[in-house]
Amino acid sequence: MSANSIGEHLRLTTCGESHGEALSGILDGVPAGIELDLTLVRNEMARRRPGQSAISTPRKEKDEVRIISGVFEGRTTGTPIGMIIENEDHHSADYSEIARKFRPSHADFTYTSKYGLRDYRGGGRSSARETAVRVAAGAIARQILPAGVEIKAYVSSVGGISLDTDYTLYDFSQIETNDVRCPDAVKATAMKALIEECRAGGDSVGGVVTCVIKGVPVGLGEPIFDRLEARLAAAMMSIPASKGFEVGSGFAGSVMRGSEHNDIFVEGGRTATNRSGGIQGGISNGMDIYFRVAFKAVATIMKEQETIDVDGRKTTLKARGRHDPCVVPRAVPVVEAMTALTLADFYLMDRMTKIK
Amino acid sequence: MSANSIGEHLRLTTCGESHGEALSGILDGVPAGIELDLTLVRNEMARRRPGQSAISTPRKEKDEVRIISGVFEGRTTGTPIGMIIENEDHHSADYSEIARKFRPSHADFTYTSKYGLRDYRGGGRSSARETAVRVAAGAIARQILPAGVEIKAYVSSVGGISLDTDYTLYDFSQIETNDVRCPDAVKATAMKALIEECRAGGDSVGGVVTCVIKGVPVGLGEPIFDRLEARLAAAMMSIPASKGFEVGSGFAGSVMRGSEHNDIFVEGGRTATNRSGGIQGGISNGMDIYFRVAFKAVATIMKEQETIDVDGRKTTLKARGRHDPCVVPRAVPVVEAMTALTLADFYLMDRMTKIK
Amino acid sequence: MSANSIGEHLRLTTCGESHGEALSGILDGVPAGIELDLTLVRNEMARRRPGQSAISTPRKEKDEVRIISGVFEGRTTGTPIGMIIENEDHHSADYSEIARKFRPSHADFTYTSKYGLRDYRGGGRSSARETAVRVAAGAIARQILPAGVEIKAYVSSVGGISLDTDYTLYDFSQIETNDVRCPDAVKATAMKALIEECRAGGDSVGGVVTCVIKGVPVGLGEPIFDRLEARLAAAMMSIPASKGFEVGSGFAGSVMRGSEHNDIFVEGGRTATNRSGGIQGGISNGMDIYFRVAFKAVATIMKEQETIDVDGRKTTLKARGRHDPCVVPRAVPVVEAMTALTLADFYLMDRMTKIK
Amino acid sequence: MSANSIGEHLRLTTCGESHGEALSGILDGVPAGIELDLTLVRNEMARRRPGQSAISTPRKEKDEVRIISGVFEGRTTGTPIGMIIENEDHHSADYSEIARKFRPSHADFTYTSKYGLRDYRGGGRSSARETAVRVAAGAIARQILPAGVEIKAYVSSVGGISLDTDYTLYDFSQIETNDVRCPDAVKATAMKALIEECRAGGDSVGGVVTCVIKGVPVGLGEPIFDRLEARLAAAMMSIPASKGFEVGSGFAGSVMRGSEHNDIFVEGGRTATNRSGGIQGGISNGMDIYFRVAFKAVATIMKEQETIDVDGRKTTLKARGRHDPCVVPRAVPVVEAMTALTLADFYLMDRMTKIK
Repeated sequence: MSANSIGEHLRLTTCGESHGEALSGILDGVPAGIELDLTLVRNEMARRRPGQSAISTPRKEKDEVRIISGVFEGRTTGTPIGMIIENEDHHSADYSEIARKFRPSHADFTYTSKYGLRDYRGGGRSSARETAVRVAAGAIARQILPAGVEIKAYVSSVGGISLDTDYTLYDFSQIETNDVRCPDAVKATAMKALIEECRAGGDSVGGVVTCVIKGVPVGLGEPIFDRLEARLAAAMMSIPASKGFEVGSGFAGSVMRGSEHNDIFVEGGRTATNRSGGIQGGISNGMDIYFRVAFKAVATIMKEQETIDVDGRKTTLKARGRHDPCVVPRAVPVVEAMTALTLADFYLMDRMTKIK
Repeated sequence: MSANSIGEHLRLTTCGESHGEALSGILDGVPAGIELDLTLVRNEMARRRPGQSAISTPRKEKDEVRIISGVFEGRTTGTPIGMIIENEDHHSADYSEIARKFRPSHADFTYTSKYGLRDYRGGGRSSARETAVRVAAGAIARQILPAGVEIKAYVSSVGGISLDTDYTLYDFSQIETNDVRCPDAVKATAMKALIEECRAGGDSVGGVVTCVIKGVPVGLGEPIFDRLEARLAAAMMSIPASKGFEVGSGFAGSVMRGSEHNDIFVEGGRTATNRSGGIQGGISNGMDIYFRVAFKAVATIMKEQETIDVDGRKTTLKARGRHDPCVVPRAVPVVEAMTALTLADFYLMDRMTKIK
Repeated sequence: MSANSIGEHLRLTTCGESHGEALSGILDGVPAGIELDLTLVRNEMARRRPGQSAISTPRKEKDEVRIISGVFEGRTTGTPIGMIIENEDHHSADYSEIARKFRPSHADFTYTSKYGLRDYRGGGRSSARETAVRVAAGAIARQILPAGVEIKAYVSSVGGISLDTDYTLYDFSQIETNDVRCPDAVKATAMKALIEECRAGGDSVGGVVTCVIKGVPVGLGEPIFDRLEARLAAAMMSIPASKGFEVGSGFAGSVMRGSEHNDIFVEGGRTATNRSGGIQGGISNGMDIYFRVAFKAVATIMKEQETIDVDGRKTTLKARGRHDPCVVPRAVPVVEAMTALTLADFYLMDRMTKIK
Repeated sequence: MSANSIGEHLRLTTCGESHGEALSGILDGVPAGIELDLTLVRNEMARRRPGQSAISTPRKEKDEVRIISGVFEGRTTGTPIGMIIENEDHHSADYSEIARKFRPSHADFTYTSKYGLRDYRGGGRSSARETAVRVAAGAIARQILPAGVEIKAYVSSVGGISLDTDYTLYDFSQIETNDVRCPDAVKATAMKALIEECRAGGDSVGGVVTCVIKGVPVGLGEPIFDRLEARLAAAMMSIPASKGFEVGSGFAGSVMRGSEHNDIFVEGGRTATNRSGGIQGGISNGMDIYFRVAFKAVATIMKEQETIDVDGRKTTLKARGRHDPCVVPRAVPVVEAMTALTLADFYLMDRMTKIK
């Protein structure tokens, strides 16, 4: 099956359940000789960490990454980098109810059907806790990319409160100044209020994350099946709760005519507009790459819902436990991590394109 | 690099340029003992074939698929199926202009930058002609899927003329009754008129394809990186000119609250609503799977555009040749083929999930 | 690069250096619902453990495997199984000499040349300590195989003291009765004496491991590049110090004529002889599979040898530290583990061959 | 399954049956900008072609390779190279007997058991005819390797008539001067006489091919599972009729002590001896790489043999048709091709090892 690996040359393999002993990952293909900045890894982990703000889950995890291999005297050795994140706050909740009832729109039913059993403690493998390893690996992947590549994601919509789709209107230095990770302070306040309202009502709400990558060299991406946008789409749609992906002009671009949509070349191969989103024919063209990822509301809510149990009988369920009322603020570092992993893979791949 | 393969277990590898001698593909992993319906393959090829209607490119290709291996006495043998499609209408156009000028929003610039050279005849490998092999392979993949799985795609939007996003409102038997492949006859007429207007003006226009899959067994898809929606997204975003993908509630779902969005289970594990789009936790839940794919307008237009040449000098270009003014009608069978390949891959994969 | 993974469907990825913090592995693709016998895992680890007998290295490692995921209430869940083995006895030897001198016939020179640096503590990633994770994973892989498959390896030669190549002459229950893991007690005593003589002289010695697999179902293995013998060969030649592989009649078979070599079919598809070694056309035929693996003497010896240092200057080196004088007794469980991983991968793969 | 591909970055996928319409292959991952020498491809095909000498099968095939993609104006474009070899001499022999009887030591029984059916015309996919595509691809792979890499294989043993295992004793310019492809003219004559004797008696005979690679840069090969010798072993053991592989000192090395076997470093990182066979720790060390591959006698012989039919009933079979009495002379270019494919893959892979 090998469904727990991503990347062709820079390859991340992960394991671990939400309430198991630990999460772990192996990042293979990291080039040798990189002076690894572990502070960067810690900072990214802190951005994803549960309990970081008033609007995230109160689950307490230090999320310290133990790097057990592949680094020697501060530099990568070319051998795989092993990462372990212990689960600390996996206190034995009472799972008797969740063990027998399927949460609506959660993976409980499909896992049970597919595998014949499921680790029901906190969602097991289907929990978004699994993304912690991705963030650690992504922080390493960033350090493989050439200097000048800058990956910035932000929350551009929560429950219908939305920013303009043109990212150039915003000051990215403002993103981390609020709990929502939104560069528009006014909208951020409104978003936060909406999230808090949802939490108070035992409900959750969806949103959109926009990601912008500057400084990408020309030539990353491979034609046909490994187009840069295809691999980015897969990476984003592998994040729990994601429902849509669009790059450049996206769905809005589908209403335009060719004469409106085409990006006219100017000197140096740059383009006057950038509806292509920095990718043409599956390959980066040196302009900014930007895309948007839609996330649905978290399925686990604290309201009573009708459902069925494992025997197919009708019942009701009111979830308990610690969950984010809105996933997008904490999805921001995950989106960035998956972007870094994808780009670094293509960066390595491109080194084999020409040999002379 | 190996960028020209897709699928883990059912794996399609393709080669061939738009104006080279032939296109070819190898489909590996087809189970043994399937009575292969070659008429189905021919029919699908006919649906994608250039020159099939008034609103498609006049390029003439019979697009006959020669199957050279993997089939014996009408049945698959378990060995790889080789497919060859000769390029017939690759008459030597005068490429002297296109050889030296980059078409805006086309892959000319990125290919040249990445590879140091490009096969400029008709777009070479970056031409959508490459999708012919995908359609042939997809028609074989459909025959791997269990009886009852039905894959139907249709054009749901052209240049802003759009159908309702709720696919259940339409009669799918109407899809193939018009050149646009739109199940709403009135809208189809308007769409066709728009496409013809674009063609007359030397312009092109974008659109959206909706795809619905009925009868999918519960349990297809793998958690984490090979989520069903992640692999579908990659498959769709690998089709030339695609700019966006959304499954189930998609981007619209991102404005909803959990209590609105959740699909309540009813008897048999079915759900009362289907905002999940038939996938929960990356795994099919037995409900209809549906998604939408946005396509931009074809980049090659017959209007004069500013651009640069291979030496970076400003120039103008007015493309000639045979191109579709709107890609979505012919993209419909391609979307279906990529869906079939993806599902069949997961169908085989799922056979390894439980062994007892 | 992804060089640290093996297997297509049952896929083991490993990391960890000899004197790093820990070794780790992720085994992906284990089917769900298997009641996992952890005692079997512990027993196999004990067979490979350093310090187990008078003729193995005195390095002390408990080699306890911590399984952190993929198992719930005693059964596999279909999610990847994470394994962690802490390095306990990695006391800070004085590596100042080894850091600057290349051990003859060791990987010191090639690692330094390839990567630009190397983790010189105990051989780093090139140490055979890495095989510990393989043994743990192999013990899990055995439990995927159908009941009746029996994998038995033994030492068939040490420094020229050799058993007959016909494995049917030996009683496999005698293998584990001596430190050498040789089913012939008399030869085992001679082998042990030779190994002890080598150790006393600061030298090492090579040998051969024979492996026999009984009860393999007909049909495992895939034609062309993934022939069963090709994948077994790769698995065996990936074990440190291996220099040769032969299956069935092997090199001796190359002197025979077809009329002598062919295995005549008798009832039930069995064959009267078994020079094929249980594999025909790359696929198991239900007869015993047997093969032999040659191992060279361990490169690290306690005798003074001429060599060069990292600056290319001539010098001498007399290794210190804890090393096996003969690798083959401890290679026996590694050979079995790699066999189990390979067979289980093919066993899963074969489930996709026919669907009707 | 995907068993019909080999290579991670330079990846060959093949299809085609012995008596089907054609053989085909796609070589993906060839870097762009290589001026491709097609004469070299033709020459290698001629070396493998049936009917080339008195001691090979009389089957007549021109074995012309049609390259349909990936090359433009004489240079590779970075897109996959498609190769088609038509089967010309697949005249409809009478297969009624072979369709119902299993040839001893052939793949007839295992294919039928595994797949439920088999293409019995000339062995179908299990025929060594499949190696034709490998030779074409190998001839391209050679052109990826840096100048100075020289791959030379020769027949070192036929039916017990053997050369010395030290390849340095021979003048490689003599290899192609005789039909056997043996650099020792006297032994070649004896080998040829033995092969002719076997053919006259309706029998076949096995042999050994030695392969030597000079000029390999230091650093090719990846540690752990993708050791250079592991991948070479798999490549060789994927050639039909191969039974054994040994590199460097091989099986003979297993009787030696470390102090005898170790290769002492001299200036420049070269070694005084080369028992390692040019590989240490799975990575090339710049010395000659050499290995030996054992081949059994061809299973199809013109003598009457006992066997069973598809219903399990005892019967006899005397094969007809056109077969080589000894496979090794024609295996020489196949061994070289598989070597070139393996090395070129590692050569590309190594470009990702260090990025700074």
